[in-house]
Amino acid sequence: MNWEDNVRRVVPYVAGEQPKEQNVIKLNTNECPYPPAPGVAEVLHGFDCDILRKYPDPDVSLLVRALARRHGLTDRQVFVGVGSDDVLAMSFLTFFNSGKPILFPDITYSFYDVWAELYRIPYQCQPLDDSFRIRKEDYFRENGGIVIANPNAPTGVAVPLSELEEIVRTNLDSVVIIDEAYVDFGGESCVPLIEKYDNLLVVQTFSKSRSMAGMRIGYAMGNERMIGYLNDVKFSFNSYTMSAVSIAAGAASAADETYFRDTVAKVVATRERVRGELDKLGFICTDAKTNFLFVSHRTIPAREIFEALKAEKIYVRFWDKPRISNCLRISIGTDEEMDRVLAFLEAYTGGRKDETHL
Amino acid sequence: MNWEDNVRRVVPYVAGEQPKEQNVIKLNTNECPYPPAPGVAEVLHGFDCDILRKYPDPDVSLLVRALARRHGLTDRQVFVGVGSDDVLAMSFLTFFNSGKPILFPDITYSFYDVWAELYRIPYQCQPLDDSFRIRKEDYFRENGGIVIANPNAPTGVAVPLSELEEIVRTNLDSVVIIDEAYVDFGGESCVPLIEKYDNLLVVQTFSKSRSMAGMRIGYAMGNERMIGYLNDVKFSFNSYTMSAVSIAAGAASAADETYFRDTVAKVVATRERVRGELDKLGFICTDAKTNFLFVSHRTIPAREIFEALKAEKIYVRFWDKPRISNCLRISIGTDEEMDRVLAFLEAYTGGRKDETHL
Repeated sequence: MNWEDNVRRVVPYVAGEQPKEQNVIKLNTNECPYPPAPGVAEVLHGFDCDILRKYPDPDVSLLVRALARRHGLTDRQVFVGVGSDDVLAMSFLTFFNSGKPILFPDITYSFYDVWAELYRIPYQCQPLDDSFRIRKEDYFRENGGIVIANPNAPTGVAVPLSELEEIVRTNLDSVVIIDEAYVDFGGESCVPLIEKYDNLLVVQTFSKSRSMAGMRIGYAMGNERMIGYLNDVKFSFNSYTMSAVSIAAGAASAADETYFRDTVAKVVATRERVRGELDKLGFICTDAKTNFLFVSHRTIPAREIFEALKAEKIYVRFWDKPRISNCLRISIGTDEEMDRVLAFLEAYTGGRKDETHL
Repeated sequence: MNWEDNVRRVVPYVAGEQPKEQNVIKLNTNECPYPPAPGVAEVLHGFDCDILRKYPDPDVSLLVRALARRHGLTDRQVFVGVGSDDVLAMSFLTFFNSGKPILFPDITYSFYDVWAELYRIPYQCQPLDDSFRIRKEDYFRENGGIVIANPNAPTGVAVPLSELEEIVRTNLDSVVIIDEAYVDFGGESCVPLIEKYDNLLVVQTFSKSRSMAGMRIGYAMGNERMIGYLNDVKFSFNSYTMSAVSIAAGAASAADETYFRDTVAKVVATRERVRGELDKLGFICTDAKTNFLFVSHRTIPAREIFEALKAEKIYVRFWDKPRISNCLRISIGTDEEMDRVLAFLEAYTGGRKDETHL
């Protein structure tokens, strides 16, 4: 016997590389290429550090109120956590307790099965179709809960709101979590369905469209009872998860709708332009409604392109996993960064393209 | 059937009141009355907010290194989390998996039983003696782990290092967690035992002696294997729990040993002075080695004093719980704040004291 016999062993999630070298183009973790709203810098640079000696507001009121106002909800319909990973993990713990398997797609955000295993929640993956689309009928069976990323990651493919509504309506006895990390870049949000269905939880994040991955803010929206249960579990871990700085900076971001829309519009414009150019270079792209593209090349294996890009200090994401091992996920950077990527790919794919014409 | 049937129901911890009114003396959550080290304000006020668009360093290297250097450890012996509550909860989840009950005192930090229940870890409370001291023999029995706050909360009583070492040495098959939230104010730290015992985990916090409760930073120190297991569990929840701002500000605090010692010395001096004055007013105080005192009055019930103080906008902590329902926990504020408290208590207890002399 040894203390190590009783350690909980888990296989940790491996996130995209965070290269420490300089002068790289980092398109592997779906970060926004533009800075946060100017109000965020104002908050930090004028912060009264004396208040740090006190515990932060456990109700996170300032930030909850800013988000409720932004989404047309009441304060009691919003729950805030340390990034959407924290919010999602706590939602799994709170709502997926039935013993029946929870359902999610076979290709999706890689944390869902990790949390399920951590909390010993049974799960069943539902295969996407050959175009990486969800088949709604797969979610019309007995289950202990459902979680769907919309738009999905890493495919970028969005589910129409009407189909999600059918899934929510068909599963009134389960909690359905819609993970909208990327929704601002072109998906249809389920937030308007919250008033209609009390089994729906919608999760969003500040890490993508609000350029604040470094601040760690995510949030869930749902009916007041559901948010109450989440708060009960949160308060049983740690009453104070959100730092005073995150609360103030997050509220400043949430209040600046104009900057938010401009940032999203820039990313979307770049994405559409890059998709068009990649198409000309022999890439097939999904209809990604995200701040990334999910692509494969007609003739060149994804792994080769991945390695070639890496040699150029261009980091994108590649998974050696079934069904997607010939795909790359490329985050949308600035126009300048994407021009460098396109220039390289044009040179790199040029010869190969000719070969296929021989 | 309804989704609510499968919700995890918990009874959340109720933290000390965070009064929103102005002009109160807040001595109910053991916050430090002095601001954080000046380097913390420098970090915030000069922060390059453009980096917030990126995910923070998942290894929290800057802060881990500063803490390792401060404690004479290697980087791989330090784990950082969102306050010591986060670190402790994750440690319970990681290390207390045997099915045997974990042991902790009957009177101690109120989160231990909450986490045990949340994670369905069996536990057995060991009664403190009548002077609120741990009886080390209570921890020489079969168990699935041990957690001891040293100095203890809310009593302030410290366990001698030699007794803790006996407990650690007698339990090589269990993980022993020593929660040193208050150790800087006069306890003996177990950190030097880390090299000797690989079943020991020592947890500290920035919320008390470093005046950074609002920033949410806690950390654990132990042998490299133990810290590795904690990191595996952490990475299976959320790769990025520490914001870029917390990492930088925490490192600035950890590097300023002079400011840290001055702050602690001021709090300790005020504590000792206040203890002497309270004694003259008919209070009995434990030998608290913390930034709070734990007191009862010879003749006046604690609840009455609590209510009288509250009416004066002086907030202290009172629990209507067995064994401590005649005690108050009073955090140490500035000398000016404590003088106001003492002046009020002198007037308030004056009459009563005379009565007992009649």
